[in-house]
Amino acid sequence: MTEIKVGIIMGSQSDLPIMSEAAKFLEEMEVGYELTIVSAHRTPVRMINYAQEAKKRGLKVIIAGAGGAAHLPGMVASLTSLPVIGVPVKSSNSIDGWDSILSILQMPSGIPVATVALDGGKNAGILATSIIGAYDDKVSKNLEEFKQSLSEKVLASAERVEEIGWKATLKTK
Amino acid sequence: MTEIKVGIIMGSQSDLPIMSEAAKFLEEMEVGYELTIVSAHRTPVRMINYAQEAKKRGLKVIIAGAGGAAHLPGMVASLTSLPVIGVPVKSSNSIDGWDSILSILQMPSGIPVATVALDGGKNAGILATSIIGAYDDKVSKNLEEFKQSLSEKVLASAERVEEIGWKATLKTK
Amino acid sequence: MTEIKVGIIMGSQSDLPIMSEAAKFLEEMEVGYELTIVSAHRTPVRMINYAQEAKKRGLKVIIAGAGGAAHLPGMVASLTSLPVIGVPVKSSNSIDGWDSILSILQMPSGIPVATVALDGGKNAGILATSIIGAYDDKVSKNLEEFKQSLSEKVLASAERVEEIGWKATLKTK
Amino acid sequence: MTEIKVGIIMGSQSDLPIMSEAAKFLEEMEVGYELTIVSAHRTPVRMINYAQEAKKRGLKVIIAGAGGAAHLPGMVASLTSLPVIGVPVKSSNSIDGWDSILSILQMPSGIPVATVALDGGKNAGILATSIIGAYDDKVSKNLEEFKQSLSEKVLASAERVEEIGWKATLKTK
Amino acid sequence: MTEIKVGIIMGSQSDLPIMSEAAKFLEEMEVGYELTIVSAHRTPVRMINYAQEAKKRGLKVIIAGAGGAAHLPGMVASLTSLPVIGVPVKSSNSIDGWDSILSILQMPSGIPVATVALDGGKNAGILATSIIGAYDDKVSKNLEEFKQSLSEKVLASAERVEEIGWKATLKTK
Amino acid sequence: MTEIKVGIIMGSQSDLPIMSEAAKFLEEMEVGYELTIVSAHRTPVRMINYAQEAKKRGLKVIIAGAGGAAHLPGMVASLTSLPVIGVPVKSSNSIDGWDSILSILQMPSGIPVATVALDGGKNAGILATSIIGAYDDKVSKNLEEFKQSLSEKVLASAERVEEIGWKATLKTK
Amino acid sequence: MTEIKVGIIMGSQSDLPIMSEAAKFLEEMEVGYELTIVSAHRTPVRMINYAQEAKKRGLKVIIAGAGGAAHLPGMVASLTSLPVIGVPVKSSNSIDGWDSILSILQMPSGIPVATVALDGGKNAGILATSIIGAYDDKVSKNLEEFKQSLSEKVLASAERVEEIGWKATLKTK
Amino acid sequence: MTEIKVGIIMGSQSDLPIMSEAAKFLEEMEVGYELTIVSAHRTPVRMINYAQEAKKRGLKVIIAGAGGAAHLPGMVASLTSLPVIGVPVKSSNSIDGWDSILSILQMPSGIPVATVALDGGKNAGILATSIIGAYDDKVSKNLEEFKQSLSEKVLASAERVEEIGWKATLKTK
Repeated sequence: MTEIKVGIIMGSQSDLPIMSEAAKFLEEMEVGYELTIVSAHRTPVRMINYAQEAKKRGLKVIIAGAGGAAHLPGMVASLTSLPVIGVPVKSSNSIDGWDSILSILQMPSGIPVATVALDGGKNAGILATSIIGAYDDKVSKNLEEFKQSLSEKVLASAERVEEIGWKATLKTK
Repeated sequence: MTEIKVGIIMGSQSDLPIMSEAAKFLEEMEVGYELTIVSAHRTPVRMINYAQEAKKRGLKVIIAGAGGAAHLPGMVASLTSLPVIGVPVKSSNSIDGWDSILSILQMPSGIPVATVALDGGKNAGILATSIIGAYDDKVSKNLEEFKQSLSEKVLASAERVEEIGWKATLKTK
Repeated sequence: MTEIKVGIIMGSQSDLPIMSEAAKFLEEMEVGYELTIVSAHRTPVRMINYAQEAKKRGLKVIIAGAGGAAHLPGMVASLTSLPVIGVPVKSSNSIDGWDSILSILQMPSGIPVATVALDGGKNAGILATSIIGAYDDKVSKNLEEFKQSLSEKVLASAERVEEIGWKATLKTK
Repeated sequence: MTEIKVGIIMGSQSDLPIMSEAAKFLEEMEVGYELTIVSAHRTPVRMINYAQEAKKRGLKVIIAGAGGAAHLPGMVASLTSLPVIGVPVKSSNSIDGWDSILSILQMPSGIPVATVALDGGKNAGILATSIIGAYDDKVSKNLEEFKQSLSEKVLASAERVEEIGWKATLKTK
Repeated sequence: MTEIKVGIIMGSQSDLPIMSEAAKFLEEMEVGYELTIVSAHRTPVRMINYAQEAKKRGLKVIIAGAGGAAHLPGMVASLTSLPVIGVPVKSSNSIDGWDSILSILQMPSGIPVATVALDGGKNAGILATSIIGAYDDKVSKNLEEFKQSLSEKVLASAERVEEIGWKATLKTK
Repeated sequence: MTEIKVGIIMGSQSDLPIMSEAAKFLEEMEVGYELTIVSAHRTPVRMINYAQEAKKRGLKVIIAGAGGAAHLPGMVASLTSLPVIGVPVKSSNSIDGWDSILSILQMPSGIPVATVALDGGKNAGILATSIIGAYDDKVSKNLEEFKQSLSEKVLASAERVEEIGWKATLKTK
Repeated sequence: MTEIKVGIIMGSQSDLPIMSEAAKFLEEMEVGYELTIVSAHRTPVRMINYAQEAKKRGLKVIIAGAGGAAHLPGMVASLTSLPVIGVPVKSSNSIDGWDSILSILQMPSGIPVATVALDGGKNAGILATSIIGAYDDKVSKNLEEFKQSLSEKVLASAERVEEIGWKATLKTK
Repeated sequence: MTEIKVGIIMGSQSDLPIMSEAAKFLEEMEVGYELTIVSAHRTPVRMINYAQEAKKRGLKVIIAGAGGAAHLPGMVASLTSLPVIGVPVKSSNSIDGWDSILSILQMPSGIPVATVALDGGKNAGILATSIIGAYDDKVSKNLEEFKQSLSEKVLASAERVEEIGWKATLKTK
């Protein structure tokens, strides 16, 4: 069975559509992960336990997503020496995502969070994979194939628009 | 001796010039307070203990100040049923104060922080006084005298500028 | 009959969907309240009377909500020594809520408003409850039970997603 | 003696360096004015009296300046049918002026404030002059001469830079 | 027949839904107006003629609305000594209205534009009325009746919500 | 056959609805162009080849559009001495377009990008035409006719609204 | 003698320190230019004449810089079919440059301005050179040499920091 | 000799004061690193080589810093499967750092950059250490000791302010 290396947590079930993109990507890359809900503000003790146990339990990376005044990624980062990837979620109570971004990104000196783009659940999964891949050739190879496929998709769409022209491309869309 | 009713905490000693304004005002109002340094990110266990013990120790209000990705006020609010006043500090690592404001103000439903203006240490002291004063006539009377004095200062400066004119006022300044 | 301790006012009936969340929460907490419409710009005399009579009438906290150039919370705060909680409303004429937030939050030294998150009607109710609860054990107990219930909801949703997995959780939603 | 047609008010004496620019310009245009300090938050009753008496006292325009959560211009506008010109002041407690601008500009439907640029004390004086000038040919003529002089200054500096070149111009500055 | 005192212009027919609110209000106030389309960027010569002839043709105020990089109000203000009211329009190509606001509000020293709130067509009409009303008692009386009616509407809605309660009010809406 | 003078590239096929506006305009102006997809992040080698070959292949201008952290226009500008026009696209992952604008506009000293408005595909086509037209009288004449037609459309809509009035105009719309 | 191909204009002499960077660069590239002051708001007729005569006088590109509500670049672009490069200047009355940027960049469909970075006088000169260079091999060669020199400077500083280390580099600075 | 595991690169030598903080921290943690200057815009070929060789040369993490339209971190991330940490630098040409942040953070799906706070050079070093430490117990132990020391410093300053009081603390500063 796959060893669990990435812990994906989020402040609320409403973050799941964004955060499940990380899980989906890790599955494709054959990286073991776990996913659950941990709220900094509503379950602070659970958060502390999760963060403090993570390394002992064998995790290598934690991905944490939250919206609004998003304290989960930063608080978890303060409680573990593992790298913590933060996903700012544009939740319903967020001001266009600015609050989510700034309260995850602007951590004080000493406690970094590896912040990805707004609603960047998939990118968090990719970043976690690249961290694992730095020490795991199998994972690294999977990631390189993924990057190759991105390139191929662009080339295919380039070829198509060059062949049939932009007018036809716009119509067929 | 005055009973301690307000706890003033801040994430770093560098917040003291702003946060001491709250202490200074509470002294003037004869409201008992304590002041110390508690960091959400660097002393999370201390923060939890402080927040969880505050009510039992007789505090009525907590004032918490922090800058950048400022998690202290919100985390403390999640750990106590006391009202928590948050002071966004425009610290050296802050982006014009926007990060401090948004990470204190935009708390999720269920965990409010009573946010005051950027660098509003004195206003936090006044707000704490008004909360204490809602149940304490002596404090309320002191606060009303303070508000009266604000009015009188404006009237005095109005009188002066009307009497000597704006040109002289600008010069004497 | 319950004594009225919280006055909820708003600048326009269009703010009612947000501001009624405060009323609803206070009912759940068994805190007496009143609710009405008071406009700083359209009924300034009514506003002054409301603010100046509030303390004499036994109120302990005022919750004031408004949108755009939102002057109601700050003006009321200037006219009473009671704590005033301000709710920035993202009204139809607001620029993504920034005007509502800044014109409530950024009060000058001397006249604080306890500002909560954009459209944070419920959080205003919770903050008022915590203020009342600082001096009323029955209310404080109700509030602690509410906070406990928040925690339990998160734990329940965590348990569910751990049990059935994120794929099933996304589908059942 | 010149009849007083413009009332210049400001929330604090610290706004005088900006607001005196309006007074200075009105003097140059030979428009009668008065200048004093009126605070929405610290002298609300004085503000109401000032606004309600202004028209009866013969004023044609009110210029009101304030910073931060700047309520003075909008509150005065709600209390008079005279045109009110608002000057957002970038005061020391302001967030780069955004709070001052938004809390003056974004008035609700029914209560406009004629807002000028941040720290635009002189422009407020010019705007007041153009309003008076719409009904007073002498003032209008003065204003047109001022506009002519602006043009002449630009032409003179253009001529100079064309004649001596930009290198010499930069040096002589 | 009513003399035309206010000229309403806009950069594009797409601004008409906003700008017609000014016209509608002026009709209610019995203030004569004209309305047409003048583009700073597409009909610069027409703009210059309009601005330069306005005063001679008897206009007392010009209302100009535009969106995005909105140059019409400021350019017209540079070409006339009449007061110019600027309406920032949140047009389809605007970035949440910020470009419209800043390119109208932030005029350089010497050339003010009386800026109203984003999409504030009606407020522009009210402001124009207050300028006319400063010299015309009939118009001033109409404006005061309008302000009175605003107050009465708020009082009526306050009475209703106090009588039937917020729950019934929310339902009947 | 028309010589190809403008290369239109975009980071993703999803940018085509915006970027095809440039192509459409160039066709109307009878300026030869080509259009394809080149991603800075997914096909970096293709991007380098495209940029380095462009001048040799006879192109005079490159139009590059991208959204979010939009690196394509700036990277292409670093690899060619041709003028590069950048189109910030408000893509689905963009924060209201601010990221797209700033990452194209704010190029360091030495490597300018000629940035047009957010989603300004058509304006990019017009700007490219004006660059070609500076050296090609036929193209310049076409562009002047286009500008003339813009003016005529405004005049026609002005005439219509003056004739039938704004009420009828609003209805017929 | 060098033929004048680029016209550099600015709204005020205070913009000269920024705008002279464009002139300086054009001199280095041996591109003929002229430089003067033209204000959209203070010398509108001069602006119109300048813009309408530019092409007839042989200019190929206009560079226009202005700050605050910066209308000069857009207004000039509306009056000529030449490419217009806009330089947003962070003038003293600007709000951190946002007003300058938005009022130049966000031009409506039909009238583009080629906007460069805030205070990007030099980049405007480079962009103008690249436009001229698209049709002039001598200029293009000069520009390529300049780009080469940029690269060499980076390589030299890289070599130095690699050789002496970052500690020594920091000290010698 | 220590194996080099982290590559620190920056767009310009002017970024060195910020970026050297990362180097300094890695030295303290006994993590091998290299530091040099690589510009996306001025040395694109060097950038490509650096990024493509990094993994083969044994690097585990790349730290890339840049300001303004900061393309270096994202471009490098597109060219390697290693994790890339981006440091937004508030360079002299940056608009308060917003451009630096957004052009690093808002990477498209597929190409994440692990972004840290504005000017967060030290935090980038810490994040790199946590990534290395996930697989290297010695490094992890060093990091945990560092985190412990952060906590101790806060506790010491807390003790001091509690002992001597805030007045004495402010003076001794």
